[in-house]
Amino acid sequence: MTSTLIPNPAFGRIGIMGRANKPSVIQSIYQICDFFHEQGLPLLIDHQTARLPALDFARLGEIATIERSLLGGACDLVIVVGGDGSLLHAAQVLVKHKVPVVGVNRGRLGFLTDIYPDDLNVKLTSILQGHYQLEDRFLLKMEIRQGAHVIYEDMALNDIVLHAGKSVHMLDFHLKIDGLNVYRQHSDGLIASTPTGSTAYALSGGGPIIHPSMDAICLVPMHPHTLSSRPIVVSGNSEIKIRIHKDNRTQPMVSADGKPSVPLNQNQRLVIHKHPNKLTLLHPPGVDFFEACRTKLGWNSYAEEFSMDN
Amino acid sequence: MTSTLIPNPAFGRIGIMGRANKPSVIQSIYQICDFFHEQGLPLLIDHQTARLPALDFARLGEIATIERSLLGGACDLVIVVGGDGSLLHAAQVLVKHKVPVVGVNRGRLGFLTDIYPDDLNVKLTSILQGHYQLEDRFLLKMEIRQGAHVIYEDMALNDIVLHAGKSVHMLDFHLKIDGLNVYRQHSDGLIASTPTGSTAYALSGGGPIIHPSMDAICLVPMHPHTLSSRPIVVSGNSEIKIRIHKDNRTQPMVSADGKPSVPLNQNQRLVIHKHPNKLTLLHPPGVDFFEACRTKLGWNSYAEEFSMDN
Amino acid sequence: MTSTLIPNPAFGRIGIMGRANKPSVIQSIYQICDFFHEQGLPLLIDHQTARLPALDFARLGEIATIERSLLGGACDLVIVVGGDGSLLHAAQVLVKHKVPVVGVNRGRLGFLTDIYPDDLNVKLTSILQGHYQLEDRFLLKMEIRQGAHVIYEDMALNDIVLHAGKSVHMLDFHLKIDGLNVYRQHSDGLIASTPTGSTAYALSGGGPIIHPSMDAICLVPMHPHTLSSRPIVVSGNSEIKIRIHKDNRTQPMVSADGKPSVPLNQNQRLVIHKHPNKLTLLHPPGVDFFEACRTKLGWNSYAEEFSMDN
Amino acid sequence: MTSTLIPNPAFGRIGIMGRANKPSVIQSIYQICDFFHEQGLPLLIDHQTARLPALDFARLGEIATIERSLLGGACDLVIVVGGDGSLLHAAQVLVKHKVPVVGVNRGRLGFLTDIYPDDLNVKLTSILQGHYQLEDRFLLKMEIRQGAHVIYEDMALNDIVLHAGKSVHMLDFHLKIDGLNVYRQHSDGLIASTPTGSTAYALSGGGPIIHPSMDAICLVPMHPHTLSSRPIVVSGNSEIKIRIHKDNRTQPMVSADGKPSVPLNQNQRLVIHKHPNKLTLLHPPGVDFFEACRTKLGWNSYAEEFSMDN
Repeated sequence: MTSTLIPNPAFGRIGIMGRANKPSVIQSIYQICDFFHEQGLPLLIDHQTARLPALDFARLGEIATIERSLLGGACDLVIVVGGDGSLLHAAQVLVKHKVPVVGVNRGRLGFLTDIYPDDLNVKLTSILQGHYQLEDRFLLKMEIRQGAHVIYEDMALNDIVLHAGKSVHMLDFHLKIDGLNVYRQHSDGLIASTPTGSTAYALSGGGPIIHPSMDAICLVPMHPHTLSSRPIVVSGNSEIKIRIHKDNRTQPMVSADGKPSVPLNQNQRLVIHKHPNKLTLLHPPGVDFFEACRTKLGWNSYAEEFSMDN
Repeated sequence: MTSTLIPNPAFGRIGIMGRANKPSVIQSIYQICDFFHEQGLPLLIDHQTARLPALDFARLGEIATIERSLLGGACDLVIVVGGDGSLLHAAQVLVKHKVPVVGVNRGRLGFLTDIYPDDLNVKLTSILQGHYQLEDRFLLKMEIRQGAHVIYEDMALNDIVLHAGKSVHMLDFHLKIDGLNVYRQHSDGLIASTPTGSTAYALSGGGPIIHPSMDAICLVPMHPHTLSSRPIVVSGNSEIKIRIHKDNRTQPMVSADGKPSVPLNQNQRLVIHKHPNKLTLLHPPGVDFFEACRTKLGWNSYAEEFSMDN
Repeated sequence: MTSTLIPNPAFGRIGIMGRANKPSVIQSIYQICDFFHEQGLPLLIDHQTARLPALDFARLGEIATIERSLLGGACDLVIVVGGDGSLLHAAQVLVKHKVPVVGVNRGRLGFLTDIYPDDLNVKLTSILQGHYQLEDRFLLKMEIRQGAHVIYEDMALNDIVLHAGKSVHMLDFHLKIDGLNVYRQHSDGLIASTPTGSTAYALSGGGPIIHPSMDAICLVPMHPHTLSSRPIVVSGNSEIKIRIHKDNRTQPMVSADGKPSVPLNQNQRLVIHKHPNKLTLLHPPGVDFFEACRTKLGWNSYAEEFSMDN
Repeated sequence: MTSTLIPNPAFGRIGIMGRANKPSVIQSIYQICDFFHEQGLPLLIDHQTARLPALDFARLGEIATIERSLLGGACDLVIVVGGDGSLLHAAQVLVKHKVPVVGVNRGRLGFLTDIYPDDLNVKLTSILQGHYQLEDRFLLKMEIRQGAHVIYEDMALNDIVLHAGKSVHMLDFHLKIDGLNVYRQHSDGLIASTPTGSTAYALSGGGPIIHPSMDAICLVPMHPHTLSSRPIVVSGNSEIKIRIHKDNRTQPMVSADGKPSVPLNQNQRLVIHKHPNKLTLLHPPGVDFFEACRTKLGWNSYAEEFSMDN
């Protein structure tokens, strides 16, 4: 591929980060660095990525490094190399800086990482020429409260999951939404998902696909012990409150975006609501949500049509 | 029950309508008329209700009659006696008048008819004293377009259903949302549901429960021929467009809120979007959506818990 | 492909039939005829297939013709060209003759038609050399009874479907299994499926995949109006009996394997049980049910994995 | 209730056991002892039940005690007091003795405990007079194999569950049935259920209801990461084999009937097949499976019908 020098690029300071120490991730980081060197554009990398064991830092050429926590503040755009999990992680580091993020896919097919390795230079060129769309995605904030105190807080781009830390034991808990009693539920747990998370874990629990533009939270019961418990979609401004029932006999745990779980005890409350900051995803031209569904969920693949033909 | 005269009632002109010619409906109409006579308040009834065969019009006492299509314009509140189906029907007659509607339940348990016969006088008293909540529900408008012409239009409070008019034959159609291609689908049809309709037919197709306050449309495929087709929740402002595929071999039909179906041909388009008018539901005190779910879906009923106990 | 003369073939008299008047079906019929001529083996074709408008009968070379209804009795093996629908049709014509059947797939991916056009000569050679497996599949028999009389009967390899002939109106019916009351159900209908049919329409209604070796009938409610109605698997020797409830307000219809529907009235009973005859499917070497699931349902396709990666 | 002396009772030696130290369980044990004393019939209790802290042993009157492991061998019938969980436990202690078991329900509604406290004396009288049905239920045996060695084995009346011991991390494993490759699956785990277990945990995972007379095993994926993974019903004589994939990153665990879990490592295999012994359930007159479904799953409860009415 011959490269074209991009005059007056849309983004002045661009950062790069990766998380997985995999050859495919490293290879894309090299390619991105080469691309920016050819364009004569500076690039910033965070310390953690720079120190990935499989990465030959010298191979990157001239590149400035910075703390991961500061990367977002120092850039106009951050390129995240990896799978959807890497982008979830990046979201949490970057969201406070309001910097746009674009993902280069080096995992399985993902809904968050728009650029495929084969298209890397073409897509980066387009983006630098100003051809892209920005899209805000909201995050959920979770708090574990004990009396008046918040004793733990975390955030999630996909989902907050209440689960029975160990095994197949059921939980027994109460759910309130905006102060109104919803139900007492016996189940393996509950998934509180953003629209972004609706195509991840919530989907495997029977939740609907929710368009990312929606201001909605979906609550998906996990293996509920009544057939009448179904996914519920409520406003993105709702306050979800969970209290463990006194008869509960298993240690409840809570996890945000699949991060390590923390316990939720009976004298505590789990409160979930929208996070004040939003993540800005940058999409290269030609990307839309339904296209992603067609590719990633296999819509319109004939192989899957199990029905009759004559 | 001794009645209390209500000074200065919240609603001056009140209408009443029913649709089903059933003894239980007639009995509630008599009771409502008696209640208003005792209160010395005038009541208006539409001609169609007044002429129900089972109704003894003279038994109603002094009451003015009016065309059903004019009832909404002549009243500050309309009481609908029947099941959810009757309220769906009333919605379509009344929505253009922006008059609040309250339902007296004489069907099976419903999500739209809040007042139960046993509580009738108490609830009416509360409402006339100004104790109530108003809630807007949006409707869907459907149009069948052929070229530049709208050749059929209808509206629905619950859902617009595309289906294979006869039998178990599958349809083959394309779905677009806001001009974007979603998929070509082989299925028995598609349910486009409002949040109000999410607890009706859409629920039986695996759709989520959507809080009535949401500005959302849910698309539920009916017996789709791929396992990857799932309910999709999109903005209430979305434009849904359906085009029958040229290989389709069954006559597609469309029905709004279960009314008689009309055909959709291959040279036509079905377009669904939000109706400009909203229906205002009046709820007596103490009614909330989750309470309705608990009662009507059997949440928290121990009888249904099939799980283990020791 | 160079052909090898097959000494002493496993099957002496072989028949061929197709149903759809499609170029792809005709092309495979030509190829099969050519193959058998090269092998010096006689072939039999039924009159209906021979008269397909798109078929040039002279192109087939020397071939005997026979009534479709007699084809099974005159052959040791019948090759059916088409999709799963064609094989369903053939099953009903051939089942009384106990002749093995093998399908050549010219439709979308199917569970019943094992041979793909590209492998046609290789697979036929294998089969004639005696490399194949026979598998019996049971059929369902349906009877509409009025008093002591059977007024209609039919059979199905996949499923018997009770449905509301027209549209989205619900049915109201009673279900008995082996004389025991199961429930009164409000729904769009009920699918009674064989294991063979479990990967067809029943699957789209939420039914399980049932291994074809199972002696089981699966009952799948269609859009049931309670969340507690779920697919039920009962013995293949069960007698299913359906009676329309007196309050039912839509004309119930019954269809076997998607054939034209017949009405079921309130003074009648629909009785479903195992058909006395079985269909013998012939599978070429290397075909197993789970392999078919992987191919046709897309199991193990990465494209479909929507979950997280890092 | 006046008691009738039962001549020549159907069962000579009757045992009683309970597990939960709850007042309701204790109260039923007292009542059963009183009943048998009035009838002049001997009763046997196991040591563990006899030593329940809440039980006043002297209150039981004359009663012989025996090791729990020997109770089954010493009796012609064992009465189990508690919920379905207690009956699962009893099944495992008693199955080798082939002694019939009847459950007295002191938990939530259950599918295994047929006698309700209010009917206790009437039902026991019927049973002793010879009015009852016996029904065999098969159990699953699980083995963890390492090379040629079985390093762990257990049994289950309901289900064997493979799960990710801790939390919401997914497993990555291969499934074989009868030596045939089925799929590699990414999911939270897999439920292998008997027909008895089909109305327990498997049902909450979307599995079908399977009639207890069926010789079938149902495999229900837990939160599978592809939409094409569905419950599969195979023969009760199938051998299920699970091998953890080398890329799996969470500790897999296995639990039989909800008992404490044991780890399954990558160099091991989980093998599941039918247990050689069967449990014989004794049902009082008038109990049938569909009746149990109606009661416990809420079939035919109008409260649950969410559909339209007019």
